[in-house]
Amino acid sequence: MRTREGDGAMERDAESKLYEGKAKIVYATGEPGVLRIEFKDDATAFNGAKRATIAGKGELNREISALAFEELEAHGIPTHFLGRLERRSMRVRRLEMIPVEVVVRNVVAGSLAQRLGRPEGEALARPVVEFFLKDDALGDPWINATHAEALGLASAGEMRQAEALALRVDEVLVPWLLERGLRLIDFKLEFGRDAGGALVLGDEVTPDTCRFWDAATGERLDKDRFRRDLGDVTGAYREVLRRLEEARA
Amino acid sequence: MRTREGDGAMERDAESKLYEGKAKIVYATGEPGVLRIEFKDDATAFNGAKRATIAGKGELNREISALAFEELEAHGIPTHFLGRLERRSMRVRRLEMIPVEVVVRNVVAGSLAQRLGRPEGEALARPVVEFFLKDDALGDPWINATHAEALGLASAGEMRQAEALALRVDEVLVPWLLERGLRLIDFKLEFGRDAGGALVLGDEVTPDTCRFWDAATGERLDKDRFRRDLGDVTGAYREVLRRLEEARA
Repeated sequence: MRTREGDGAMERDAESKLYEGKAKIVYATGEPGVLRIEFKDDATAFNGAKRATIAGKGELNREISALAFEELEAHGIPTHFLGRLERRSMRVRRLEMIPVEVVVRNVVAGSLAQRLGRPEGEALARPVVEFFLKDDALGDPWINATHAEALGLASAGEMRQAEALALRVDEVLVPWLLERGLRLIDFKLEFGRDAGGALVLGDEVTPDTCRFWDAATGERLDKDRFRRDLGDVTGAYREVLRRLEEARA
Repeated sequence: MRTREGDGAMERDAESKLYEGKAKIVYATGEPGVLRIEFKDDATAFNGAKRATIAGKGELNREISALAFEELEAHGIPTHFLGRLERRSMRVRRLEMIPVEVVVRNVVAGSLAQRLGRPEGEALARPVVEFFLKDDALGDPWINATHAEALGLASAGEMRQAEALALRVDEVLVPWLLERGLRLIDFKLEFGRDAGGALVLGDEVTPDTCRFWDAATGERLDKDRFRRDLGDVTGAYREVLRRLEEARA
């Protein structure tokens, strides 16, 4: 039997936690259809094989993500973002998430360099869009719209919409970041359905999920600093936020 | 200096050979826009790591492919097939080939089983279509329409057409084969552009490039007999041809 006193607060907390991922925790709120997302300081890479805690990352990522969602909303792209909460959290719309990572690439980097045998840093003649099944046990295998439909994850129409929305996100973020001295190399998005079934951008837009290179020097200002042991991860994330806030002021 | 006599026939042969692949040789003919394809007895698997010569395979594959192309043409699907030549060859239209393998899957088998963690033999809720870049050095990496366009291999429109044509091929071949006691598990196609730029099915349709399972017993009647050392490869290919010819008589 559960006790109703003493550990009540803890129990409520435990009950309201809906999901804990590698970099975020999702909580239910008292408000129907509204969730709270807390950005963690934890970092993982290589499907969880490399782990660390990076002090300050959660707070920086919350704010970078908030600014990116505001910019996207201002351009008519529907996102789950509703507003800021205490320093590491944001209010978001509850979505039925599609377990597919949507990757957009403007420049060859990371796994694409190996796979297609092209040099890192080579600009692509057009943005490419890749889909990966979110499945740690399988190592997030690549899929396409036909697999998503065959596996019952999303309709082919939804996948076409996700691809088109992802390319719109790219069109908005590339110039926005370039004005701030950042080159958007590639990024990962996740989409979900709102109560009416419409596709909405969820998850986050941060240096954990995007590759940002300094437009002048090519310096990595993203999670590759952690993946490749380049040092000063927090400093790089702070620099990204500084540029976004500076331009705003 | 080249000699003009003695080895002249050999020289002409060498000059008319346009391309030699793992399972076929392509020759120019005197006729403009027409090629001769010779089906070899050679078999390779695992990106060339496993090799063998399978007596009679070339002849069987030429005829199986000819029958499949005739069936597809009868259903309005444009193919490069023009007619039979001496026992291991066929006349085909010259195409500008797109270096992409188009794989259609009705049932989980081979690499898809590992990649998505599904059991071999599981029927897919809809056919899936996959694209792979033809590049032995890179191990034929997966791509999609956006990569094909970014790499200058084909337009996104051509890739959509290739996907639609591949699904039409599936619609024609599945019932045609099932009436002959064969279950079409998956297959690989290659497309090219004709002189007018229209997409046309090229390459071959054989047990080297398709998985055929006996509809009653599930017995493998295709190249998996070679890949998995199941024995009697020629016998399996001959059985496929026997069923196609029997139904025709």
